[in-house]
Amino acid sequence: MQAEIITIGDEILIGQIVDTNSAFIGKMLNTIGVSVYQITSIQDDKDHLLKAFAEAEHNADIIIVTGGLGPTKDDITKHTLAYYFNDTLVQDNQVLDHVEQLFKKYINQPISDINRKQALVPSKAKVLMNCFGTAPGMWLEKGNKTFISLPGVPYEMKALMENEVLPKLSQKYKRPFILHKTILTYGLGESAIAERLEAIEDNLPKHIKLAYLPSLGRVRLRLSGKSDNEDTLAQDIQQQVDNILPLIKDIFVGFQESNEGLEQIIANQLTKIGQTLGLAESCTGGKLAEQFTAHSGASTFFKGAIVSYATQTKIDVLGVSEDLIKQHSVVSVPVAKAMATNVREKLKSDIAVATTGNAGPTKGDSDAEVGTVFIAIATKNGVVAHEFNMGNHRERVINKTVNKALELLQKEIFEN
Amino acid sequence: MQAEIITIGDEILIGQIVDTNSAFIGKMLNTIGVSVYQITSIQDDKDHLLKAFAEAEHNADIIIVTGGLGPTKDDITKHTLAYYFNDTLVQDNQVLDHVEQLFKKYINQPISDINRKQALVPSKAKVLMNCFGTAPGMWLEKGNKTFISLPGVPYEMKALMENEVLPKLSQKYKRPFILHKTILTYGLGESAIAERLEAIEDNLPKHIKLAYLPSLGRVRLRLSGKSDNEDTLAQDIQQQVDNILPLIKDIFVGFQESNEGLEQIIANQLTKIGQTLGLAESCTGGKLAEQFTAHSGASTFFKGAIVSYATQTKIDVLGVSEDLIKQHSVVSVPVAKAMATNVREKLKSDIAVATTGNAGPTKGDSDAEVGTVFIAIATKNGVVAHEFNMGNHRERVINKTVNKALELLQKEIFEN
Repeated sequence: MQAEIITIGDEILIGQIVDTNSAFIGKMLNTIGVSVYQITSIQDDKDHLLKAFAEAEHNADIIIVTGGLGPTKDDITKHTLAYYFNDTLVQDNQVLDHVEQLFKKYINQPISDINRKQALVPSKAKVLMNCFGTAPGMWLEKGNKTFISLPGVPYEMKALMENEVLPKLSQKYKRPFILHKTILTYGLGESAIAERLEAIEDNLPKHIKLAYLPSLGRVRLRLSGKSDNEDTLAQDIQQQVDNILPLIKDIFVGFQESNEGLEQIIANQLTKIGQTLGLAESCTGGKLAEQFTAHSGASTFFKGAIVSYATQTKIDVLGVSEDLIKQHSVVSVPVAKAMATNVREKLKSDIAVATTGNAGPTKGDSDAEVGTVFIAIATKNGVVAHEFNMGNHRERVINKTVNKALELLQKEIFEN
Repeated sequence: MQAEIITIGDEILIGQIVDTNSAFIGKMLNTIGVSVYQITSIQDDKDHLLKAFAEAEHNADIIIVTGGLGPTKDDITKHTLAYYFNDTLVQDNQVLDHVEQLFKKYINQPISDINRKQALVPSKAKVLMNCFGTAPGMWLEKGNKTFISLPGVPYEMKALMENEVLPKLSQKYKRPFILHKTILTYGLGESAIAERLEAIEDNLPKHIKLAYLPSLGRVRLRLSGKSDNEDTLAQDIQQQVDNILPLIKDIFVGFQESNEGLEQIIANQLTKIGQTLGLAESCTGGKLAEQFTAHSGASTFFKGAIVSYATQTKIDVLGVSEDLIKQHSVVSVPVAKAMATNVREKLKSDIAVATTGNAGPTKGDSDAEVGTVFIAIATKNGVVAHEFNMGNHRERVINKTVNKALELLQKEIFEN
């Protein structure tokens, strides 16, 4: 069972936006055993759409099209779909009612002519009601092939995928099971891991694949399998996991559930053991806090953060001694330790993490080389600090520091 | 002059990673007058690669391929390119030296056999040296068509695009000029704006397109043009801007330079007027701070943030009075005002912004409805707070609050 995703919009091709919809759709389809054969991003151009529709119909059983459903003239997906299906647009009264209600509720105005057009759909289409917006989803069939058109606005698309598309696809198609299991490792490069796993890779069964996903000090190992039998598939993948783990004991961190990040693993564990967390962020500038608070339930363990970006803020708010800073510079072990110790006290948290470093591109209030970073962790047992060189690329220095802080924190709470 | 981007990797199709490379490449190609015809993401599968190569060669002049260049068995791009060009792999000694040096420098070990293979390249390829990693870029020509293979690791790919690919493409191909101008608006929906601009749209010259990009309360209007004459193109686009602006005076915020965010516009302005900023974040959890500190130069205006996620932290660190919270709840005008006023004092900043709200999905320490958010801005002239309902979707509540806070802050510093 294969799908193709077609995302439509000049803004994708000129790089004005990053296409995040495809990843979401791919992940969702996988959960019901549908593989994505190809993702194709194309311009708002009728001929190009028609060509992409035809190729996708040839390659795949399910064609999911996103974007190009706005009421403005640059959006042409609906008309082109109608043309492709040799169909005409007709007014759907349920959609019209819905759009009228949205107008009344949110801007307290009668529907405008331009938005009235949102209720036009190809006569052969089954409408998928879009609770969050004016553009309806559409479901069109051609023999055993299904075309699904969804709005490009991510949260509208997501709701339609979850509530309409997946249930309907599950009902219509018989599908195999697809399982992924992702092993998280830290501290060893992709090729060094591959050397350890060479014999295992050579003997992998045909229905299981192993992929290496390196990223900023972490390597994820993904085992993927496809089969008609879910139970034996799970066993087959587990067998490979059991083969692999003894060979990577020193670098194994855990398993990644779906796209769960390390911050979620930490959040779950802190909640479970009833401990709280506080942060003092300098070079990471709030990014650690943002990661923890992106998920619901953060208030059970997360006290907060002091983003002491300016040196003066380290003194005024965190209470780091000015002499200490003068003596060692703001980017140093003693200052990192003081930040962690003080924020733990001020926020009354069980655990505190502090970051201070020079993300570059130029040196700041410190003589430390660009890329030098200190991360300190304070607990009731004391405080430790670690020094790192994170390279000379600002965005990477920040992200690597966030990853490394999460890694240290994870070790702290799981091992102690 | 058309390009196609092919990104390779099962991790993209199963949604394990979002393909951010294509947007970057598309944007860079635009700057030298190359349009992207299509972005195609495919599996690590030889037949699929060959098919995509052939189709891209038919559609485009320039084919940029990313990914699949790792040393592990799941990476097959290099072998498949050699096969497509009816070529064999030969060792490149410059690449081998480089990989050996990387091994020596970073892990102080001799190069492993598996990484020695990174120095193999198709004999017909011109090597593009990858300073940051072991996988070389490759440049292969077939008549007037050019295939360029780049590593999938974003910062390695970016450096190669900037330092090697763009200069070489500029030299090889004669290209038209492409210009985009993006107008930022706030506070009016896409369709309402389209109604105002209908006459302008109907009379746009053929070489200029207008697109609407709505996102969380903002609509960006993008004018795009293509021409052999850069000067007249700039004039033609400016003419359309001059036609549009009088019709959207009330919602016009500014122009977006490349992908510059509002936080950068604010950063530039604060630096220019010599004012400093401090933040007190509750429901935005550090995301505002993270946005400001993502860009270099933040230390000139950004004092820091107190992410007072827990109610107790609002009391202990921000010094908000417990009675005030008891009387009005943590999600209220008085608490938002106190947060902004107090953080301005504690961080000694000229301007302070505070956010407090309930991002959901469940009610926290307050009785406020999910989605209720207060944003306060404190300056030397006093403090004001605004109430919003940001809906009931956690991620969107956070992002809308960040956008709204930036919008209010922008108005504050540009108007006062």
